[in-house]
This record gives sequence, C-alpha cells and structure tokens, in this order.
Amino acid sequence: MATKKMILDLDTGVDDALALAYGIADPAIDLIGVVASYGNNLLEQTAKNSLQLLELLGQNVPVFKGLEHSSTSDHFNVMQVSKEIHGNNGIGDISLPEPTHKIQAQAGVDFIIEAAHQYGKDLIIVPTGPLTNLAAALRKDPQISHLIGNVTLMGGALTVEGNVSDVAEANINQDAKAANEVFTSSLPITMVGLDVTLRTLLTKKETAKWRQLGTKSGTAYADLTNFYIDAYYNLGIDKHGCAIHDPLAVGVAIDPTFVTTLALPMKVITEEHNYARTIGDKMKLNTSHPNVNVAINVDKERFVPSFMEHLTSLLANH
Amino acid sequence: MATKKMILDLDTGVDDALALAYGIADPAIDLIGVVASYGNNLLEQTAKNSLQLLELLGQNVPVFKGLEHSSTSDHFNVMQVSKEIHGNNGIGDISLPEPTHKIQAQAGVDFIIEAAHQYGKDLIIVPTGPLTNLAAALRKDPQISHLIGNVTLMGGALTVEGNVSDVAEANINQDAKAANEVFTSSLPITMVGLDVTLRTLLTKKETAKWRQLGTKSGTAYADLTNFYIDAYYNLGIDKHGCAIHDPLAVGVAIDPTFVTTLALPMKVITEEHNYARTIGDKMKLNTSHPNVNVAINVDKERFVPSFMEHLTSLLANH
Repeated sequence: MATKKMILDLDTGVDDALALAYGIADPAIDLIGVVASYGNNLLEQTAKNSLQLLELLGQNVPVFKGLEHSSTSDHFNVMQVSKEIHGNNGIGDISLPEPTHKIQAQAGVDFIIEAAHQYGKDLIIVPTGPLTNLAAALRKDPQISHLIGNVTLMGGALTVEGNVSDVAEANINQDAKAANEVFTSSLPITMVGLDVTLRTLLTKKETAKWRQLGTKSGTAYADLTNFYIDAYYNLGIDKHGCAIHDPLAVGVAIDPTFVTTLALPMKVITEEHNYARTIGDKMKLNTSHPNVNVAINVDKERFVPSFMEHLTSLLANH
Repeated sequence: MATKKMILDLDTGVDDALALAYGIADPAIDLIGVVASYGNNLLEQTAKNSLQLLELLGQNVPVFKGLEHSSTSDHFNVMQVSKEIHGNNGIGDISLPEPTHKIQAQAGVDFIIEAAHQYGKDLIIVPTGPLTNLAAALRKDPQISHLIGNVTLMGGALTVEGNVSDVAEANINQDAKAANEVFTSSLPITMVGLDVTLRTLLTKKETAKWRQLGTKSGTAYADLTNFYIDAYYNLGIDKHGCAIHDPLAVGVAIDPTFVTTLALPMKVITEEHNYARTIGDKMKLNTSHPNVNVAINVDKERFVPSFMEHLTSLLANH
C-alpha cells in the first residue's frame, strides 16, 4: 500500500491533539502539514498548540495558519463551553515548552491548494474543525475539488441529535455556509460525525497506560485527555468516558473499513431555523451520484484498540 | 418458509391501496385483517375504501375500525394536501361499487391485541398511517410488545428532510406522541421512511401495464395510481413518478433484504420545536440494544420489479 499524504486541518483542542498523535503514529500516513483553524480556541492558540505538540512528539511537520473566523463573520470568540471541555489553552491546561519552530509564512489555504495540485488523488485532507479553510481553498481554486483524493472530516450529525443544538454539531455550527460549500462541491467526502464518534469512548483506564510509560509525552497526553474525560463527566455529556471524535476521522482516513457508510447527497442548512443541520438532500436522492459517504456505524471493538496501539507506541518513545 | 400472518393498519390512501393489493398478492403472506386509521382521509372513508378494494380484488379479509383521531386531540380534519395527493375520497376519486361486506364489530385495537396473543412471533403488523392504533394497543396491553414478531412501519425520515416540515414525515406528524410510544417500546420495529420510499418511483409506464390487462381491478388501479402520479407532478413533489411509500413497507415485511438497515435506538420529538422528528437517541447509543432497524437504502432494481410482478398477476385475475 502506497503511503498516503495527509493534511490535518486542526482547531487543537484535546481530541485534535489525539488526532495529531494518531496521524503521526501510523506509518501508513505521511503527514505533510498541519493547517490551523479557529474553533476550540483562537487561531493563534490552536496553531501554537499544534506546534508544541509536534515538538513534544519529536516531529518536524510544518504548521500553517488558516483563517481566523468564519466566512460569515469578521471575528471569532471562543465559546465558554469550549473552554470547559478543552481548557483555557485548548489542551486541557497542560504546560508545554514554548515552541522552537515557527509557523510557516505561507497561508494555510494556499498550502492546501498547492498540495492538491502536487499530490492529487494521493492527498487526503482531514479537517477536524470548522470547514472555513477548505471552503476558502475551493473558492480560490475550484479545480481542486476534482484533484483531491478524499476529504475525511469530523463534523455533522445525521442519525443522532447535535451537540450545540438539537440539530447542529459544533464544527459545522461554526460555519454552516462553508460546510455547505464543501458538502455540495464535487469533493469526495467521508463525513465522520456524532453518529459514530459518540460510540467511541476513551476512559481513564486507557490514559493510565500512557502515564505508566513514564515519558514526557505519555504524561502530557494522559493529563490533557483526563481533563477532557473529567469535562465529559462534569458536564454530563457522557459519564462513561470521552468521545474520541477527531481521532476517528484520522482512523477512517487511514482505514475506511473502520466504519459503515451511507452514500448520500448532503446539504447543510444555512438558514436560522435548524442552522447547521447536516441532512440528505431529497431533491438529489434519485438524480445525483452522491459525493458524500456518511459514517453511520463504527467497528469500535477494532478501532479503539488500533488507536491505542498506535498512540501508545508513539508516546513510549518521546 | 412458513406463511407469515400480517395485519395491515391502513389509512387508505392511494399508496395504501397499492400496499393492500401487494399484501394480498404475495403468497408468502396470510393477510388476517385490515385495521383502518384516520390519516389520508377520515376513518369512515378509509375503512370503506379498504372494504371496497378488498371486494374489487375478490378477497374476504375482515376490516376493523381503529381510532378516529390522534392520541393528543379530540377530532381529526383531513389536510388539504391529503385531498390533493389522494383525491377527495382518498383513492384518486375513482368510483367503486358500495361494499357488500360490513366492517367488523370488534374494535381494531382489540383485534391487534388478540392477534398478538394468538400468533405471537408469527405476526407482522404493517402500519402505513399514524401509529395511534398500535400505541393504543400497547397502552391497553403492554405485554404485546414482547409477543409480536415485527412491526414494519411506513413513517419517519432519518437521513432526509420530512414532507410535512423539514423534519416531520406525514404519518408521524399525525400523532408524534403515539409514534414515540411505539418507537421507545420494546417492539421489534423496522422503520421504512422517506429515506428509502422516496427512492422507489412508479410511473405511467407501469400503470399502463395494469390498464392493458382489461380487468376491472387493472383499470381501477391504473386510474387511482395515475391520479397520484399527476399529483406528484403538479405539486412538484417529484416530476419523475410517485413514491410507493406504503408498498415498500409491505415489501420489507415480506423480504427484509430489500433494504439496508441501521440498528438505532430511536425517539420521536413531541415538543413543538421540530415536532415529529424521528431521530436516534444519543443518550442510548452505547447502552441499549436497539429495537429499531431503520431502512437507509433500498435495492429498488429488485423491489420495484417484484412489486410489479405480484400486483400485475393479482390485477390480471379480478
């Protein structure tokens, strides 16, 4: 199997931090760059978090800045609930050394476009935050929708209720217009939404294994994930563990057989009523060749151990 | 294969008329009774329609009266759009002789309960209208939820928007409270909703075959179905044909492999906001053994010809 080129578009975030480690840990993936997005925190912070985590994990992967706010606003404020779930600094309020590397000068949107032309079908983009950067790249160079191999995104909710409203999932809710542009483009998309991510739970039993490694990264990842597990418990999101949303998107990008999918022409509601709902477009049900595969079930008995195996190996060495 | 005992709970209705003929035509099914529901028309009318159609098709199947209105109201008025889709009399305004048989004296709800005790796992109930009758039976005798083999219902919309509102499908919308009681009971349910029924279209090419048979029933079924196809066209629901909603539920009851399903704990929203939405209950996603299989895709290349073959054989002989 040829190594796939992957771009992670992260709003780092605790589960983004886990996704980043997973993307590094799996040898089937060549992580060519990280694009930062606003979302779980401000862009400045999420970019810094990615840099720091990459250095913690001994990686020299370029980090690019994406856009600072949604396509329909001129600013972004971190939601209070994001701070409660991910900590004030986005990574469970753990302390990491100031980064020694710098953020790339090239804009993240341009990096995506350049990589699409360079790698074509070998390129997988994994956005785990708002779809603002990818939509901006599509607007700037619509041709890339025919070039990119696959977009495997964490976002949306089709068969279950949302987590921001009864219909809206947090990433899509940040920029429904951008999400609708991405979904209704001709990009080949795999949607990894709450339908499946809420089924994959991590507990303190798993994080204890990382702490036992006695490494810096093992301790840091145990700490930041425990913050997230506690938040899930305290906010009543799930008392049994934390959903590993973003890592599942990386997992599915690596091995699509982790999930069962439904091919469906999708749209995102951009009107106020039911804003950010992700739903099948019944007007296209019998006419189009669907470009979106929606993950509707997950083989969690296979995914969670595979995720743990890769992460534990990586964290053991840094 | 043992013959399955089937009860059809119909609000007859053009596509209910097609479902009724299909239930009669397939030798795998022993249709033991039809329960009438309000819905596409008033109860008096839908009961009469079922009686008349059974006589047209040369069948002596008992027809029972269900309830006249939803569990949360004290009356029922036919919606204007129902008249436009199904005709003022519910069956495309075709004329049929006055029925010679009478409606049964036993209440439909009691017939359901009695049949559940008599046939147990061999009994399949196929509701193609509101779930008011089934919910009433459950309330009167909760034990039947453990007796009945399967409920294969036409209703709901999980992966596509509704047809009454952006979230609500017409049958569920008539009585969301009853639907929620049915979905959250321990009844084994297969939900055949707009997700799949909008993918199965019938056209005037098919109805022309029935007319060519030169039989009374062939002519009647061509006429009533053409009324429905014209309504679909004129109301802009679908310009390519009419969805055969209710027959697909009968088809899936006979042969579950016509559809792909997702096992999901389901609920129905009974509050005003997003009333009658059918959606997976994320609070039960990891804890329960789902009692609902939601049809999310259909093998229409196999289903539509099978439906046509059975119906055409039946209509040729009456």
